[in-house]
Amino acid sequence: VTLDAVDTPALVIDHAVLRANVERMARLAREAGVALRPHAKTHKMPEVARLQLAAGAVGLTVAKLGEAEVFADAGVADLFVAYPIVGPAKIARLVALAGREGMRVSVAVDAAATAEAIGRAAATAGVEIGVRVEVDTGMHRLGVPSGAEAAALAVAVTGMAGLRFEGVMTHEGHAYQAAGPAELEERARAACDALVAAAEAVRAAGVACEVVSMGSSATARFAIGHPGVTEVRPGTYVFNDRSQVAHGAAARGDVAATVLATVVSRPSAGIAAVDAGTKALTADRLIVPDAHADFGAVAGTGWPVKRASEEHGLVAVPRGVDVGVGDRLAIVPNHICPVVNLFDAVTVVEDGAIVDSWTVAARGRMT
Amino acid sequence: VTLDAVDTPALVIDHAVLRANVERMARLAREAGVALRPHAKTHKMPEVARLQLAAGAVGLTVAKLGEAEVFADAGVADLFVAYPIVGPAKIARLVALAGREGMRVSVAVDAAATAEAIGRAAATAGVEIGVRVEVDTGMHRLGVPSGAEAAALAVAVTGMAGLRFEGVMTHEGHAYQAAGPAELEERARAACDALVAAAEAVRAAGVACEVVSMGSSATARFAIGHPGVTEVRPGTYVFNDRSQVAHGAAARGDVAATVLATVVSRPSAGIAAVDAGTKALTADRLIVPDAHADFGAVAGTGWPVKRASEEHGLVAVPRGVDVGVGDRLAIVPNHICPVVNLFDAVTVVEDGAIVDSWTVAARGRMT
Repeated sequence: VTLDAVDTPALVIDHAVLRANVERMARLAREAGVALRPHAKTHKMPEVARLQLAAGAVGLTVAKLGEAEVFADAGVADLFVAYPIVGPAKIARLVALAGREGMRVSVAVDAAATAEAIGRAAATAGVEIGVRVEVDTGMHRLGVPSGAEAAALAVAVTGMAGLRFEGVMTHEGHAYQAAGPAELEERARAACDALVAAAEAVRAAGVACEVVSMGSSATARFAIGHPGVTEVRPGTYVFNDRSQVAHGAAARGDVAATVLATVVSRPSAGIAAVDAGTKALTADRLIVPDAHADFGAVAGTGWPVKRASEEHGLVAVPRGVDVGVGDRLAIVPNHICPVVNLFDAVTVVEDGAIVDSWTVAARGRMT
Repeated sequence: VTLDAVDTPALVIDHAVLRANVERMARLAREAGVALRPHAKTHKMPEVARLQLAAGAVGLTVAKLGEAEVFADAGVADLFVAYPIVGPAKIARLVALAGREGMRVSVAVDAAATAEAIGRAAATAGVEIGVRVEVDTGMHRLGVPSGAEAAALAVAVTGMAGLRFEGVMTHEGHAYQAAGPAELEERARAACDALVAAAEAVRAAGVACEVVSMGSSATARFAIGHPGVTEVRPGTYVFNDRSQVAHGAAARGDVAATVLATVVSRPSAGIAAVDAGTKALTADRLIVPDAHADFGAVAGTGWPVKRASEEHGLVAVPRGVDVGVGDRLAIVPNHICPVVNLFDAVTVVEDGAIVDSWTVAARGRMT
C-alpha cells in the first residue's frame, strides 16, 4: 500500500531513516563510552523508544510526568524527568512512579526548596528519587550557575532524605543560536566545559558526581567524547528537521519525518496552497539566528512554505512548474518535536510502502 | 472547588465571559438582520456550539471535514466547510455527511475543477452540496478575484449537477495586518465592498447570489450592518485573545480563555519560569504588524512571556516582585484558536469556582 492511501495532512515516518538515525547516535555514544539517554519528547512513541533502548540507550529523558507514565506503562524502567517537579499533585505522581516495581526515576532540580518538597514526599512513601542539579551553561532558561551555587545545591540535596544525588545536567539550547558550524562547536564545547566544571565543584565539595549530562541533538556530536561528559540526551536526532540540517547535525537524507500535504488551490502562478498550515507544521521558526519567517520546506525541491495560517500553507513554487490541485508535497518541518505533538498517529513507511501506523501515545501530556 | 484543584498547565474558560461574548455578537448580528455562522475552529467544542446556536447562530463554519463530523454527531444540522475539499477520500466523506438525515452542508470553492469533482460525487450519491465561491478580498491566500472571475465560477457551479450555488464568501484576515483601528476599519470595509461587488457581478451574470459572507472576529463589528453583507463567520470572539484586544475587537475583560501556569523556577530576579511553553501557548506571535516576539502575557499585570521553549515560558517580572516557585499565573495567549487545539479538555469556571470540564471534541482533526 503506497502513501496514496493516506489522507492529508499526515505525519510520515521513514522507518529505514529512523533506524539509521537511532543506530548512528547509539554507535557514537557506545564507541565513546558515554551513556545515551534520548529525550523522548521528540517522538512521544513507545515504538521509537524501543528502537532506542534496543540500540543501547540506558533509559529515556522526558519533560513531563505524563510522558514518564506513558513510557513506564510501555515497560521503560529508567526515566529522567528533565523538569522541576513543583506542586503536590505532580509530586504525588512522581512518588507513585518511583514506587513502581523495578522503576528508576530521577528529576532535574535547580532550587533547594524544590528538591526538599520532593524528598519529603519520597521519604514518607519510602521511595528514593534521583536528583540531577540543573546547571545554566549559557541558555539562561533554568538552572544554577556552574561553580559554587551548583556545588551548594548538590551538598544540600545529598543531605535530604528520599533523594539520591546523581550528578549535574544542562540543556545547551543556546547553541542553536550559533551563527555557523564553528560557533556551534565553540558554544557546545564551552557548555560542556561549564558543566564539567560544575561537576568538579561538586566533587571538590566532597560529593560524588557520577552523572555529567548534556542535552541537545545539535551539539551531541561534540558532547560525545568531550572529556568529563558521561551522558548525552539528544531528542530530535531520531527524526531530524530543517533546524538540524541547518546546523550541520544532519544531512538532508537523515530527515525521517515529513508532513505529507495536498495542494488544494493554485491561487497564483507562484503559489501552491496546501492543506498543512500551522495546525500541522506549528508556527515554530527555523532555530537559527535571524530565522526566515517560513514554516517548512518541500522535501527534495526546497520550496519554502512562505506563509501559513492554521489550515493553509502557501508554498512558493517556480512559475510554470507543473504542480496542480490534488498533487501531494512532503514538507520538512522547521522543528519536528512540536509537530509530532499535533498528530494523534503517524504513518510509517519503508521503501515508499506503508508498513505501520503508530499512535503518538504521549501526545498532549500537559502535566 | 477552586482552580487550586487543577494541575497546570490548564486551559481555563470563564463561562460568564464566554456567554457574554456569545450573546454580544449574536445581538449585533440579530439587530442588523445579518446571519451569524460562527467559525467553530476556535473552540472545537459542542458545548460552545450549543451556546452559539441557542443565541441565534444559523449554523456553524468549520475548516475540516473531521470537525464537521464531530459537530454533526453533536446535532448541528447546518455546516459550512470553509475549505476546498480535494481528493476522493475527503469528497466521499463530504457526500456521506451531506447525506445524513436533515443535514445541510456547504463548502468553499475557488476553482471549477474542485467544484466539479464534488458535484460529480454528490450527483452520483443523490445528494446536494451547497457551494460558496471564495473571493480574494485582499488576503491573497485562496480565492478568485472579485468581478469577472468570481462571476464565471458562479455561473460554472450553477451548471453542475449535485451542487447548489449559494453565494460568495471571503476571509479578510489581512485586516489583522492593519497598523491601527482606523486602518483596520478601512481594510474591513474595503473587503466588504469587494465581496459585495463580487456578488453584484454574479447577479449581473444572471445568477442569484443569496449569501455574501464575511469571516473574521476583528472585522465583524464593521461587516455586520455593512450594506450588502448577509452573513458573518467570526470565530475567535467566543474566547478572545491578545490579538483581538490589540485590534480593539475586545476589551481585556472580554478574554474568556487563559492558560493557567505554575512558576517552576526563579532563575533570576527579572524572570519567573512557568510550565507553559509553546506546547501550551503555541509559537504564534501577536497578529499585528511587526509583532513583538513574545508568547502571551499574564492576565492583569500584562507581564510578557518573553521567551518560550516547548515546556518553559520565561515571564519577565518586575524586580523585587513577590512571585515564587509554586505560584500560579494566568496567561492570555496571543492567538487562542491553535492553543485550544493543544488541549484535550478545558476547565470551565464561574466566579472562580470550577463548574465543568469540556472535552475538546474536534481537537486535532487533521483531515
